[in-house]
Amino acid sequence: MFVLGIDPGLTTTGYGLVTDGPRAVIAGVVRTSPKASVAERLLELHRDLSGLVAEHRPQVVAIEQVFSNRNLQTVANVGRAAGVAILVAAQAGLKVHEYTPSSVKRAVAGYGNAPKEQVQKMVAQRLRLAELPRPADAADALAIALCHLQGASLLERVEAAK
Amino acid sequence: MFVLGIDPGLTTTGYGLVTDGPRAVIAGVVRTSPKASVAERLLELHRDLSGLVAEHRPQVVAIEQVFSNRNLQTVANVGRAAGVAILVAAQAGLKVHEYTPSSVKRAVAGYGNAPKEQVQKMVAQRLRLAELPRPADAADALAIALCHLQGASLLERVEAAK
Repeated sequence: MFVLGIDPGLTTTGYGLVTDGPRAVIAGVVRTSPKASVAERLLELHRDLSGLVAEHRPQVVAIEQVFSNRNLQTVANVGRAAGVAILVAAQAGLKVHEYTPSSVKRAVAGYGNAPKEQVQKMVAQRLRLAELPRPADAADALAIALCHLQGASLLERVEAAK
Repeated sequence: MFVLGIDPGLTTTGYGLVTDGPRAVIAGVVRTSPKASVAERLLELHRDLSGLVAEHRPQVVAIEQVFSNRNLQTVANVGRAAGVAILVAAQAGLKVHEYTPSSVKRAVAGYGNAPKEQVQKMVAQRLRLAELPRPADAADALAIALCHLQGASLLERVEAAK
């Protein structure tokens, strides 16, 4: 299983590729200039994420679904970036799974309202990384990929046990 | 000036093409199945809007920016659809202008909190349509295009007067 985790945002979109082990293959962020128009920024995000998918060929995309605890303008902007990220996956024929922030935290750190630092530490520990992944959005994307990998491996065991 | 107005939504996206006059060229909606995944729905929206742009070749896209008076899940879904619609415009090299619902109402019906029916009547009247455009999302998209056309023609007169 080769999962691309995405933490979408108009200014910064985190991405992290995780494979079985679990092992981190690559993680980073796509940043777009706040000086550019929204259209130019979404175009750049589409290009960069499409390039990432074409290069690394993940099997599935896991993405964070944000619709709480934020102001409406932020939710609208995250929604736009998420729309483009989901489209990139669909255009590549990949399945998309969405996870709420609390289910990501629960999967990675054991409880749904774990603080951000705790989640990042657990990401580093479970992927046996010497350092915390930087920037934070890249670490968040790895957490989302881990969350999917864990759920998927559970599902596989359930299927196998049937 | 040939404007494509878009009223984005995950389930129903209204579109309306308006040219100088003002005259309505075409209006309608793209619907996606609630039974399909979000990824499939965004893919379909991208295909249909791209086809519309390729066929009619508008010069500019005007889109409604919704970030108030709705619940967060709706805002997130509208954001995703808007992200895909803005991407379609950017990929075709078109400029995108965003308008809030109240600026659309002010431009078309004269005041920012005009009721929906009043806005639709004004759309039909200004475009000299015998009937109110149906469904409502198509009429809303025509209103957004009209809003841009009006602002653009004002801007042109200001520029000409300089």
